[in-house]
Amino acid sequence: MKKITVLGSTGSIGTQTLQVMEHHADRYELDGLAAGSNAALLIEQALRFRPKRVCLATEAAARQAKEALPAHIEVLQGEAGLVELAGGGDADTVVTALVGSRGLPATLAAIEAGKSIALANKETLVTAGHLVMEAAKRKGVSILPVDSEHSAIFQCLNGERREDVRGITLTASGGSFRDRTRDQLQGVTVEQALNHPNWSMGAKITIDSATMVNKGLEVIEAKWLFGLHYDEIDVLIHPESIIHSFVEFNDNSVIAQLGLPDMRVPIQYALSYPERLHNPSGRLSLAEYGKLTFREMDFDRYRCLALAFASGRAGGTATTVFNAANEVAVDRFLRGEIEFLAIESILEKVMEKHEIIANPDLEAIAGADSWARRTAASL
Amino acid sequence: MKKITVLGSTGSIGTQTLQVMEHHADRYELDGLAAGSNAALLIEQALRFRPKRVCLATEAAARQAKEALPAHIEVLQGEAGLVELAGGGDADTVVTALVGSRGLPATLAAIEAGKSIALANKETLVTAGHLVMEAAKRKGVSILPVDSEHSAIFQCLNGERREDVRGITLTASGGSFRDRTRDQLQGVTVEQALNHPNWSMGAKITIDSATMVNKGLEVIEAKWLFGLHYDEIDVLIHPESIIHSFVEFNDNSVIAQLGLPDMRVPIQYALSYPERLHNPSGRLSLAEYGKLTFREMDFDRYRCLALAFASGRAGGTATTVFNAANEVAVDRFLRGEIEFLAIESILEKVMEKHEIIANPDLEAIAGADSWARRTAASL
Repeated sequence: MKKITVLGSTGSIGTQTLQVMEHHADRYELDGLAAGSNAALLIEQALRFRPKRVCLATEAAARQAKEALPAHIEVLQGEAGLVELAGGGDADTVVTALVGSRGLPATLAAIEAGKSIALANKETLVTAGHLVMEAAKRKGVSILPVDSEHSAIFQCLNGERREDVRGITLTASGGSFRDRTRDQLQGVTVEQALNHPNWSMGAKITIDSATMVNKGLEVIEAKWLFGLHYDEIDVLIHPESIIHSFVEFNDNSVIAQLGLPDMRVPIQYALSYPERLHNPSGRLSLAEYGKLTFREMDFDRYRCLALAFASGRAGGTATTVFNAANEVAVDRFLRGEIEFLAIESILEKVMEKHEIIANPDLEAIAGADSWARRTAASL
Repeated sequence: MKKITVLGSTGSIGTQTLQVMEHHADRYELDGLAAGSNAALLIEQALRFRPKRVCLATEAAARQAKEALPAHIEVLQGEAGLVELAGGGDADTVVTALVGSRGLPATLAAIEAGKSIALANKETLVTAGHLVMEAAKRKGVSILPVDSEHSAIFQCLNGERREDVRGITLTASGGSFRDRTRDQLQGVTVEQALNHPNWSMGAKITIDSATMVNKGLEVIEAKWLFGLHYDEIDVLIHPESIIHSFVEFNDNSVIAQLGLPDMRVPIQYALSYPERLHNPSGRLSLAEYGKLTFREMDFDRYRCLALAFASGRAGGTATTVFNAANEVAVDRFLRGEIEFLAIESILEKVMEKHEIIANPDLEAIAGADSWARRTAASL
C-alpha cells in the first residue's frame, strides 16, 4: 500500500485525487488530509478515508473537525499544522493541491522529509523553483507533475534523453474568452469568465485560464520541472484541449500526450508512475472529435502571458511578484472590485515598480510576495 | 562509425537512407549495397559511398556494375549474392528496403549473422513473422521499424511497460482515392492511383495505399513487431498524415508521434536509436496546419483492409497468400491488365481458394507464395 497525504483535499484536484484513490483502494491509503475552511467536506472525507491526521486553516474549522471526528484522528491547525502534516506522518507521496503560494513551506517540509511530491500547486515552483528543485535534488526526491500539461510533457519524455530535446510546447485552450478580441473583453462579468469551455476547475484557475496567466505560471513551472530555458518553451492555442502538450526532439520528431480533458488521468499518473493503471475517466476517440485545431499564440491579445515570460526571464523575485500580484488582482476581480482587463494592468504596473532580488531566500521571497500583494491591492 | 548495408538502395527508402547517412557522414559508413536492375543508380551510389560490396539482381546489371566500379568493390549477383551480402560483411545494421517477399531469405541471413535489422520490407514479417521474430529473439537481434507508422509506435513505447498498453492505432491517409465512393473507383487510371496526397513513395506502395492493402500489411507487421493481438490494433483515417500513429495505455492516456510526412525521420531513428540526431527534414508547425482531421475507418469502403485483418487472424500461410496475390494483382493493374477494383476481388478469390497451412516453415511459405501468385495471375 502506498500512503498518500493530500494537501488541499476539498478543492477540485483534492476531491479528484480521492476519487482516484478510491478507484484503487487496494493500492492507496490515505495518511493525511489538509483543507482551508471547508470543514464539512473535510470531515466527510476523513470519515470515509480514515486518515491518521487532518489539518484545517482556520481555528473555527479545526474546532468543528475535532467535534465531528473520532478521537484517533488528530486535528492540526494553521500554517504550522500544515507544515507538520506535510513533513511528518508515514506518507510516501504528498499531493500538493493547495491554491496559491501558501503551499510553499509545506511542500519544502515534505521534500525535506524525503517524501515524493505530486505537484499540483504550481505557485510553489513559480515563487521558489530554485529552492524547491535544489531541495528535491539534494534529498533525491521526485517531483511528479499533476498539471495536465506537465504530466503530458513528463510522459512524452519517458525513455528519452534530455540532450535530444529541442523544446516543449504547452497547449492552451484559450480560456473562456478565446473567441473575443481585446475590445470585447471590456466589461465581461465574473460569471462569463468562470465558464471554461473544456476543464472543470476551481474559480482562481479558471480566471487564470481566461487571462492566460495560468499558462504563464505553467511556463515557469515547466522551466523548473524540466530544467529548460525559456526559449525552449512554446505555447500553442488548441481549443479542444485534447493534445495536452508535446515535446519536439532534435530529429524533428514530436511526441504528444493526448486524452479527454479529465484531471484524474494526470493525478493518477503522478501516484502510479512508472506504472499505468485503469482510470475512471473516459477513452478518447479522435474519430468522434473529427478534428483538432490549432492557432499561434497571440502575445498581444494575451499580454499576461508575455508578462509571465518576461518575469521568468528576469528571474529572482520577479516571478514571485507576478504570481502574488495576480492572486490579489484575481481575488479583486472575483469580488467585483475591478474589471477583467484591470488584472493585466495591475500585473504590469506591479512588475514595473518591483526591484528584483536575484537568487532570493525564503525571507526575500516572502518579502517580495507581501510587497506585491500590498501594491496590487492599492492600484 | 556504424557500418550499414542497404538492401534496395535504388528505391525510395534506399535513396533516402543514403541521404541520412550522408547527413551524418561522421557516424555512418556504408558496408554493402543491393539493388534490383537499376545498375546506373547503384553504380553512382557505390562511387559516392564506397561500399566494400554491392549486389544486383540480374546478370546484365551485375556485369555493368563490374565494368564501371573499381576492382576493390566486389560485385555479387542474384538471390544467392543478396543472401551473402546481407549475412556477410562487417555491417552492424542491415536496412531491408527491398519491395515484396523476396527480401525474406536475406533478412533471415542478416539476423542469423547477428546484425540489427532496420526493417522497411514489411512483407518479410507479413509472410514469415513467426520465423523472423523467433530468429531475432534467439540471436538477440533488434528489429527496428522504418515504416513511419511502426516507428511512431516504437517511439511512443519508449520507456513504457508492455503490460500497460491497451492497444495501438495506425493512422492512414486514405490514399489517392480517399474522397471517392466505391462506385467512383470504377475505371480509375494508373496515373490517378499513383497520385498520393502526402507521401512520395514507390509505385507498388502507392497503389497499396489506395487499396488500403498497405495498411493491412502494416497491421500484420505491427502484430509481429510489437507482439500484439489483432483486436489490440486499430486503424484511423487521418488525411494529413501528421500523427503517424499512437498508443493507448490502460489509464486512457494516449501517446502519439507527429511530424511532417518525411521518411528520413523514421529511417534515421532506426539507425540512431536510442539517440536522436539532427535530421534534414522540416519542422512541424501545428499552427501552420491549423487543423488535423480524423474519420473512422470504413471497412466496407476499404474491403482489402478487412481481408488483411481476416488473413492475419486466420494465421499460418494466409498472410503469405494475401501478400503474394496482392503483389501480382498490383503488378497486373500497373501494367493496365486489370481494373483497380479487380485487385480486391482477386485477393478475395485467392484467399477463398487457399487451404491454410498452420505454422509453416520456409518451404511451405514459398509453396503458398507461388501457388498464390499463379492463382492471382490466372483470375
